[in-house]
Amino acid sequence: MARSIDLNADMGEGFGPWSMGDDRALLDIVTSANIACGLHAGDWDVMAATMKNAVAKGVGIGAHPGFADLHGFGRRRMDLPRETLQNLVRYQLGAAQAMAAAAGGKVRHLKLHGAMANMAAEDADMARACYEAALSIAPDLIIMVLAGTAQQGAAHDLGCATACEIFADRAYNDDATLVDRSLPGAVIHDPDQAGARMVEMVRDGAIITESGKHIPTRIDTICLHGDTPSAVAIATQVRKALQDSGIRLAPFTGAPV
Amino acid sequence: MARSIDLNADMGEGFGPWSMGDDRALLDIVTSANIACGLHAGDWDVMAATMKNAVAKGVGIGAHPGFADLHGFGRRRMDLPRETLQNLVRYQLGAAQAMAAAAGGKVRHLKLHGAMANMAAEDADMARACYEAALSIAPDLIIMVLAGTAQQGAAHDLGCATACEIFADRAYNDDATLVDRSLPGAVIHDPDQAGARMVEMVRDGAIITESGKHIPTRIDTICLHGDTPSAVAIATQVRKALQDSGIRLAPFTGAPV
Amino acid sequence: MARSIDLNADMGEGFGPWSMGDDRALLDIVTSANIACGLHAGDWDVMAATMKNAVAKGVGIGAHPGFADLHGFGRRRMDLPRETLQNLVRYQLGAAQAMAAAAGGKVRHLKLHGAMANMAAEDADMARACYEAALSIAPDLIIMVLAGTAQQGAAHDLGCATACEIFADRAYNDDATLVDRSLPGAVIHDPDQAGARMVEMVRDGAIITESGKHIPTRIDTICLHGDTPSAVAIATQVRKALQDSGIRLAPFTGAPV
Amino acid sequence: MARSIDLNADMGEGFGPWSMGDDRALLDIVTSANIACGLHAGDWDVMAATMKNAVAKGVGIGAHPGFADLHGFGRRRMDLPRETLQNLVRYQLGAAQAMAAAAGGKVRHLKLHGAMANMAAEDADMARACYEAALSIAPDLIIMVLAGTAQQGAAHDLGCATACEIFADRAYNDDATLVDRSLPGAVIHDPDQAGARMVEMVRDGAIITESGKHIPTRIDTICLHGDTPSAVAIATQVRKALQDSGIRLAPFTGAPV
Repeated sequence: MARSIDLNADMGEGFGPWSMGDDRALLDIVTSANIACGLHAGDWDVMAATMKNAVAKGVGIGAHPGFADLHGFGRRRMDLPRETLQNLVRYQLGAAQAMAAAAGGKVRHLKLHGAMANMAAEDADMARACYEAALSIAPDLIIMVLAGTAQQGAAHDLGCATACEIFADRAYNDDATLVDRSLPGAVIHDPDQAGARMVEMVRDGAIITESGKHIPTRIDTICLHGDTPSAVAIATQVRKALQDSGIRLAPFTGAPV
Repeated sequence: MARSIDLNADMGEGFGPWSMGDDRALLDIVTSANIACGLHAGDWDVMAATMKNAVAKGVGIGAHPGFADLHGFGRRRMDLPRETLQNLVRYQLGAAQAMAAAAGGKVRHLKLHGAMANMAAEDADMARACYEAALSIAPDLIIMVLAGTAQQGAAHDLGCATACEIFADRAYNDDATLVDRSLPGAVIHDPDQAGARMVEMVRDGAIITESGKHIPTRIDTICLHGDTPSAVAIATQVRKALQDSGIRLAPFTGAPV
Repeated sequence: MARSIDLNADMGEGFGPWSMGDDRALLDIVTSANIACGLHAGDWDVMAATMKNAVAKGVGIGAHPGFADLHGFGRRRMDLPRETLQNLVRYQLGAAQAMAAAAGGKVRHLKLHGAMANMAAEDADMARACYEAALSIAPDLIIMVLAGTAQQGAAHDLGCATACEIFADRAYNDDATLVDRSLPGAVIHDPDQAGARMVEMVRDGAIITESGKHIPTRIDTICLHGDTPSAVAIATQVRKALQDSGIRLAPFTGAPV
Repeated sequence: MARSIDLNADMGEGFGPWSMGDDRALLDIVTSANIACGLHAGDWDVMAATMKNAVAKGVGIGAHPGFADLHGFGRRRMDLPRETLQNLVRYQLGAAQAMAAAAGGKVRHLKLHGAMANMAAEDADMARACYEAALSIAPDLIIMVLAGTAQQGAAHDLGCATACEIFADRAYNDDATLVDRSLPGAVIHDPDQAGARMVEMVRDGAIITESGKHIPTRIDTICLHGDTPSAVAIATQVRKALQDSGIRLAPFTGAPV
């Protein structure tokens, strides 16, 4: 049975004079773009340019808020009060909405970035705080969650529009968590291997772990990376493998999880 | 003939651990608050708290965007490309809209801050670029302009909802510009004097210069300052003098200028 | 037997347009100033002005490095690589040395700020990493440590010049740690109480805990706070109580601990 | 007659997660590195790594201070008080000195960056303010100046150790200023052309303008760029052309200008 899948990638991660990743190449591959909102990466000009390009390519625009930490790229854990966390999400989402409107588009989804995402994947209360803050501003927003984590649980409890995400280039443990980056095999560098496992996971509707275990999971979108040349090669091959297998590429619809 | 006037002040100019001004005192005096948007002052938490208080007091919320310059408090002139300027305004306005919505309010007006305002007061093209950027996001926004400057001209040309502003505590030259701060008498420190001249200007519908010249001008709002104890005393007295004279305090309506 | 004690306070914690605390009042009270270095608070102008005033008053200059986190005032814990931590300390110390030299002074001591200090008080390896980084730049630097913590242990192991610090306005647990701020009585607000206990602790050479236990400790300096009006009152009274008791106020000498 | 020349390039211009330029390639080409100090680019980790590499390659370390403007990469003109300008230079130089010492090196020279440099090239008072601030911290510092500009005049008046710089890839007007970047031919992209003209200028001891005019000038160092692949090709060829012509590559000695 044919089904469809969305492909997403983080973008707009330049800042001032600095660029990051090959956004132009990725925009020809993905159907959804998670665009940094100025606090861990991105600025008003980068956001404007990235959103304009996304609109031109028909790629769905997502707000990608993170901690206010340029030095650490939003990857350092910070223990913030719930209110601050919610204000951070609102501030970045609002800025993204304005920039998207100016580009002739609209923020369709939200995905948490870096340490904020990792903490929310472990802590459903934190995930819920972030999502509620976002939904209070944009009730129709689709919340992109890491499949099988506390993020998904929080979105489920809220009953909001949701998209469940798996990673193209990261190995999974048997409890559906990601294999630690420091371990061998944690990151998949071979485009063919990445493509083949994505086809299998999407077809089965399951995360397939390193040991071969199948964990049935709703899968709406695949996260691709774009910050290295090999990442673009992987992204290209994942897209090709899916299409060759008859799986249609299409933006997620946001059915509640 | 009775008429009405709005009182406005800049607020939400704290940042992280630092506070500035006596926002609580001012919110009992003004009818409009210009709230910093995080780039020259203010942050998500300060914005949230200030907007919440403004909503509670029934004070109109304004976005107060400025240059991205914390060290310089947005008071240093920067020569930016038109697109960057517009992106800066959009970004800050969007963030303010989200924070206002979360506080149960709405951004009703926009006032440029610091060097951005000063440059736009001299350069109608720059003013227009900023206002167009804001109106593209929020078409119903009321643009607050410095009466008699290129800001007013730009708002006039755009035909947008407008509020014209005069200063309670600054002396005017005969060409309606402000007397340079470095000159004696440029800043009015006496609450009674400030109150009396505001009553006179509002009644006459004219800027009254240092030399006594009356320049007929539309006046919708009076800018009060709040960052010193004497400023709060001036603000209090201006409000009292206006009310004692039978002038009603009410938010501006935004009629095009 | 008469002995001497140093009084220290954190200073130079303004930033750009924002001020914090009453540095001028404190400089008449303390013998050592811990001056922020621009990353959690302070900037080049604030540092220059504070150091100039410290030199004029004969107050010893200390570098007070913290995490690069203006929003959080350096009070948010960050898990940084050892190298980054050392680079952060070196960068801030070097900047402070240049600013002190320009003010006609010299950085005599170093005290870690905020979360960096709290983490180092629990983790001797981290404390040692910070101190080694500082000493590699300035071998004669006196390291100010929180008495009875892992900071003191690290300084002891390094054999470096050291000053041991107790708090004037914080209650102690029986294991020499500070009573959590969220508990009643954790912070002492009464100037007389603060003064009396400091006299007692200095005389006894011991931390006196909430329960009355005496923990013998080397005490070289007392930390005063200056960011509230009551804090200046406490600082003034602590100084007076010490002097009235015949304890001499003098900068610490830095004997190894 | 054989003579020697120094080659310099700006380096360490990454920031947090962002890199810029190919510092490793440049360190094999140049004899002097101008290293960003954290306010317009660079951070403590980037500085540490760049200085370590410079020490390993025997490349002279220079502090490269600029305006505190990450978004604008220090390329936006700011009108700052003289004291602030001096504090900015001191702060950055001090930080660089500490980082260099930790890397086993020493800050040998100073070169102003971006808009700070451009403004100082036009304004001898500003140049002098910056240089005096630096020399007050490090009296033996060699000041690198743009040959033929107000920078050189300021260094001459101070009698300080100096190195005069010309550009490998920029065309000159007949008054020794640079041809505006917006004009055709302003930037030289052909490695052979860049190499040939550098050989000619160094041999003649003169700036050779677009029209062919020779302006006798002391030339101690040639500025190479490294932020594009073609820039490294130009840098490589300039080095080769000089060596093929019998001109020795060696760090400048800093004789007063």
